[in-house]
Amino acid sequence: MVYGSIEAGGTKFVCAIGDGDFNIKERVSFPTTTPEETMKLVIEFFKKYQNELESIGIGSFGPIDIHRDSPTYGYITSTPKLAWQNYDFVGTLKEVFDVPMAWTTDVNAACYGEYIAGAGQGFSSVVYYTVGTGIGGGALQDGVFVEGFSHPEMGHMLVRNHPDDSFEGNCPFHKTCLEGMAAGPAIEKRAGKKGQELAEDDPNWDIEAYYLAQCAYNTTLMLSPDKIILGGGVMKQKQLLGKVYKAFDELMNGYVKTPKLEEYIVTPELGDNAGTIGCLALARDSKLHS
Amino acid sequence: MVYGSIEAGGTKFVCAIGDGDFNIKERVSFPTTTPEETMKLVIEFFKKYQNELESIGIGSFGPIDIHRDSPTYGYITSTPKLAWQNYDFVGTLKEVFDVPMAWTTDVNAACYGEYIAGAGQGFSSVVYYTVGTGIGGGALQDGVFVEGFSHPEMGHMLVRNHPDDSFEGNCPFHKTCLEGMAAGPAIEKRAGKKGQELAEDDPNWDIEAYYLAQCAYNTTLMLSPDKIILGGGVMKQKQLLGKVYKAFDELMNGYVKTPKLEEYIVTPELGDNAGTIGCLALARDSKLHS
Repeated sequence: MVYGSIEAGGTKFVCAIGDGDFNIKERVSFPTTTPEETMKLVIEFFKKYQNELESIGIGSFGPIDIHRDSPTYGYITSTPKLAWQNYDFVGTLKEVFDVPMAWTTDVNAACYGEYIAGAGQGFSSVVYYTVGTGIGGGALQDGVFVEGFSHPEMGHMLVRNHPDDSFEGNCPFHKTCLEGMAAGPAIEKRAGKKGQELAEDDPNWDIEAYYLAQCAYNTTLMLSPDKIILGGGVMKQKQLLGKVYKAFDELMNGYVKTPKLEEYIVTPELGDNAGTIGCLALARDSKLHS
Repeated sequence: MVYGSIEAGGTKFVCAIGDGDFNIKERVSFPTTTPEETMKLVIEFFKKYQNELESIGIGSFGPIDIHRDSPTYGYITSTPKLAWQNYDFVGTLKEVFDVPMAWTTDVNAACYGEYIAGAGQGFSSVVYYTVGTGIGGGALQDGVFVEGFSHPEMGHMLVRNHPDDSFEGNCPFHKTCLEGMAAGPAIEKRAGKKGQELAEDDPNWDIEAYYLAQCAYNTTLMLSPDKIILGGGVMKQKQLLGKVYKAFDELMNGYVKTPKLEEYIVTPELGDNAGTIGCLALARDSKLHS
């Protein structure tokens, strides 16, 4: 028996087959083009395992419909990616694979991965952010995703401008929200070059840390979680975390006694595998199955 | 059999005795002075019912220790009210009343009241804010309080200054956080007179609504709840809610399709009884009992 994992991201899909201990048997990656093209490749990949496939865990870019009693459950809904708008993701797979499927957002899946097998292991309340081409967040409390009328969209929380930052923000909806000020494209537009090309001591990293500290601060006050995990490409800048702690301390000003920051605001233990392991774990644990 | 309710607020304690349908048999109120004075009155009140008292629900001002495995579980911890710092609230009551006690924050208790018997009834995810002398928030998902290393402190989330607002903020920790800009004392200090004395069309209400809209916006993106309930003295200004909807719409700019705002951001159905009914319900439902 094997489990299937689909990490459906905005730029690529990562599909994998693994066992209940998250040993990965095979993993492939496809560019996210149109549903016709991309899903054809996804289906071909899993067909090889059709006879032993127990269930599939899917973490998708969004917004997605997560309400099982909704007629569009399992759909990607109002995404700006036009080809994927109102796309019946789960239904398309169900036509081919008659197995249970777990369906949640890509960040929720990564959060679940870190909760089950990474930095969130053994903790009750875990929040995961990915800081990359966009910013997304997901939260779990006692293994249940934080959600209501829909899943969270934490990356678009409001932030205050850094006093030295004149960048006008590039979120198409909110200009200067967290994503508009702190995702990879914002760093690049502000600095005039990619984040990877900036020196470690470039002042742009202080600006970036100020926004991420606001994110961690608001998360602390809203959810009071046991762990805040900051993942995604931007967090590969190892100098960032220390700057985030400093800015967080200044914002908090002693008001809430959090756990020690080095243990409270951390990077993913599973690295880039958080999503794949999360989807395998969702498949294994029969969470959110339909 | 009767249930006891203690709403322990920063200015007054409201104690009540009620039945399982929240019919209130007796209710009294004491000023919050010192633990010795105030708790003496509390204990005297409940002693009259000692023989029929099934359990007590307590919603307290905070911060409080909610972790049952902690040696200071049931304590008020680092409150700025010096007399109550590190006060063993539950332990003091337990010395006199050998009944189960539910222990949570005052806003969590009010949130539970609205969830069980008010505006949140029948919904999965409910957030409650009180906007009064301070701002506090609590959240429930499927009857479980949102919490982790501690309870939330939502009232201190960061907000952006309204462009016409030169008030410097009066939160002793964060100056211009939500509470520092939008609680009753901030309104009074900004306007030079109490909120109740301001005309309905005073521009100060637009400023207030802008901050409350940011609160609702961030709450939407972080928790995506089914209901956001805004209670407390400031919300008795009936003209506020419409202004909050307008500012919320402008901030959201169509990004997340929330439920209809008139049904999504609401005032408490239980009015000032949310806390008392919440504590009775916590007592009745054996939640958080110790």
